[in-house]
Amino acid sequence: MNTGTGISDWNALDDAQRAVLLARPALSNNEEIRDAVRRIIAQVRADGDSTLRALTRRFDGIEIADFAVSAGEFAAAERIVPDEIKDALDAAIRRIEQFHRAAMLADVRVETAPGVVCERVQRPIEKVGLYVPAGTAPLPSTAIMLGVPARLALCPQVVLCTPPTRDGGCDPVVLVAAARCGIRHVYKIGGAQAIAAMAFGSETIPKCDKIFGPGNAYVTQAKLEVAQDPLGAAIDMPAGPSEVLVIADDSANAEFVAADLLAQAEHGPDSQVLLLTPSRAVLDAVATALERQCALLPRAAIATAALQYSRLILVKDLAQACAISNKYAPEHLILNVREPRSWLAKISSAGSIFLGAWSPESVGDYCSGTNHVLPTYGYARAWSGVSVSSFQKQITVQELSPAGLQAIGPDAATLARCEGLNGHERAVTVRLQTLEKNA
Amino acid sequence: MNTGTGISDWNALDDAQRAVLLARPALSNNEEIRDAVRRIIAQVRADGDSTLRALTRRFDGIEIADFAVSAGEFAAAERIVPDEIKDALDAAIRRIEQFHRAAMLADVRVETAPGVVCERVQRPIEKVGLYVPAGTAPLPSTAIMLGVPARLALCPQVVLCTPPTRDGGCDPVVLVAAARCGIRHVYKIGGAQAIAAMAFGSETIPKCDKIFGPGNAYVTQAKLEVAQDPLGAAIDMPAGPSEVLVIADDSANAEFVAADLLAQAEHGPDSQVLLLTPSRAVLDAVATALERQCALLPRAAIATAALQYSRLILVKDLAQACAISNKYAPEHLILNVREPRSWLAKISSAGSIFLGAWSPESVGDYCSGTNHVLPTYGYARAWSGVSVSSFQKQITVQELSPAGLQAIGPDAATLARCEGLNGHERAVTVRLQTLEKNA
Ligand SMILES: [Zn+2]
Ligand SMILES: [Zn+2]
Repeated sequence: MNTGTGISDWNALDDAQRAVLLARPALSNNEEIRDAVRRIIAQVRADGDSTLRALTRRFDGIEIADFAVSAGEFAAAERIVPDEIKDALDAAIRRIEQFHRAAMLADVRVETAPGVVCERVQRPIEKVGLYVPAGTAPLPSTAIMLGVPARLALCPQVVLCTPPTRDGGCDPVVLVAAARCGIRHVYKIGGAQAIAAMAFGSETIPKCDKIFGPGNAYVTQAKLEVAQDPLGAAIDMPAGPSEVLVIADDSANAEFVAADLLAQAEHGPDSQVLLLTPSRAVLDAVATALERQCALLPRAAIATAALQYSRLILVKDLAQACAISNKYAPEHLILNVREPRSWLAKISSAGSIFLGAWSPESVGDYCSGTNHVLPTYGYARAWSGVSVSSFQKQITVQELSPAGLQAIGPDAATLARCEGLNGHERAVTVRLQTLEKNA
Repeated sequence: MNTGTGISDWNALDDAQRAVLLARPALSNNEEIRDAVRRIIAQVRADGDSTLRALTRRFDGIEIADFAVSAGEFAAAERIVPDEIKDALDAAIRRIEQFHRAAMLADVRVETAPGVVCERVQRPIEKVGLYVPAGTAPLPSTAIMLGVPARLALCPQVVLCTPPTRDGGCDPVVLVAAARCGIRHVYKIGGAQAIAAMAFGSETIPKCDKIFGPGNAYVTQAKLEVAQDPLGAAIDMPAGPSEVLVIADDSANAEFVAADLLAQAEHGPDSQVLLLTPSRAVLDAVATALERQCALLPRAAIATAALQYSRLILVKDLAQACAISNKYAPEHLILNVREPRSWLAKISSAGSIFLGAWSPESVGDYCSGTNHVLPTYGYARAWSGVSVSSFQKQITVQELSPAGLQAIGPDAATLARCEGLNGHERAVTVRLQTLEKNA
């Protein structure tokens, strides 16, 4: 194949070859990037806004007097953005809000013994920072994917950072999307310096408790760095390049499958693209369709680069495909098979799943209702995508009546004694003795 | 005060003094510990079990032939542990299970547009590792706090590591607690080497996807290190020394308050202990009671060391106390006040909250039903305690009918175009065109 797409037969491979096939590429230049990012963070912590201005001059080639987007800029964005885009944003926000609201946690209240009430309550994280990248193009969809759950969580302070445009402005669609999520604190700053500013604060940019959003290798590394510093900020999740894994049976339309693989491939040259199918015919048809469709894309160069590392894998059957997918733990999993729901129970690790022929991954990126900030790079084995709870803390509460303490206090005392923690025991017994005296 | 307890008047302090009062101590010897831990991790990755044996010889002074606890050891533990302790464990497990089960997430299913079904399903994390420390004494309570939610999450592989006893055995109460949570894979290994083994696997100890549990500075550092490595493991949360903050009004019994502060202080010399009260009388009475009660404790030396850094703070009123507590974001918050529930809504950050005079923090450590693995060191600003969801992944799912795609596809296409992602647009339009042709 000219696109370099690699076709393999899973059952003709030994364990080592299989491991290589599912291995993700090492994250590039790790040490170099890490050192650069550490320097940036140290500089931002030391010199705040003046460092932010210098770094923006250096990396974005632009002089920014005030990072904060003004009310005038918001108003101009509202005028510039066409109604068609505004309507699509509104519809997407409506569905995202509906799904995220339904998935919110309810408060919990249980009486675990008479007089022992245990509860779980929710509180918003006070200060959250959202990062909206603009690598090859600005991503207003990320603004709504983070802004909607932040608003549902009722976070009192929401800050959004996004790289400045070439003329020192801010992408108008990102501004319209932010405004529709109630976000008014938008700053024109990108890269590791934006993450450093949100984690530690500067004269202009407020310090945040948690930072969300995707980004390039510098942004990703900066998030890892600030998350390790107790004075820094928590982060939504670790990240790597975006990925899709498609499982297709012989009912799958090869044109659909190829389009789905290409949608992933156009994200960046490091995008991961995998197809698992028991059908040799589908495999070949997809390979052909990939080549033809790829040529039609404005981002053909990026997609072609990503496809160099794509894997089109022939498997024994769909059960084997599911097992391989679980091992890989893809960010996006498309089950383009006859009865997709019957295979759902077999899937143990994935960020988000797309069932059937009519559920392209693109709808999850934009407007079906689910979140598109998802665990990549195998992190789906232990991590979940962003939801409203990502913007909240769950706090447990217990309230005991005197009778409640009399019921369970002796258990606590016994276990405390057995751990050699007599002070813990005394905190119970001093109360029980008081109750006895007053009885 | 002889115990060195520091009494301060919040409203007599300037901002800098207030910041010092609420500042947590820097985590000790950070660089030295980090380097030692990195060496240990590299050794374990390189040499597996033989390194684990060498490190156990060095740090625990004992030769371990087989780290795995045998069926015979489990059976012996069952015989040795007295019924009183078994009954207390059973009762604690019952209540912890009841609360944790009630707090489990339900599946979600929403139709965000006709023919667009969005869902959230849960899947257990496949391989989880639990760490049960045994610093000054083994902590069977930690085994049940981690084992119960792991079982409710239905994690297929649960591994528990705990330091060996001086005779190369395993604390029998920890074994009984583990067995009661269905955990049969227990390994006699502690410290950073245990974390490294669970993160990367060894000949004996299986690699885990996520590692849970408290520990000393080495364990904590090892968890941070393995969490940064994409080949390592996720962790429950970052950690620091344990802490309690008590808010008391003039109704509070000073003996109870002092007992609660001491229960925290006895955990370790780095334990953080704070009291906020608008009552000068309570403040003085607690200071006196602290001194008297401390002398009664077997662990008086540890508690006294911790009390050196305790803070007894006079505040204007309870509203100010809540505001200060939110700034500090304590792991444990005791509201020992007249109508505690009326202040609950004012609390925005804490790990777990104890309401009223009859809810000592000890019951949360052992048996009220809530989890005792909680965010310390200010992490409660952005993190929550361990729950069943800590052992699960939430996966989103979407299934569109042809009509569903016709309804929302155009929105996705519009937004994809506006982000310059024409491949994303095509994945939608190629399907819509097929539907039109077939109509
Ligand atoms: Zn995409
Ligand atoms: Zn405790």
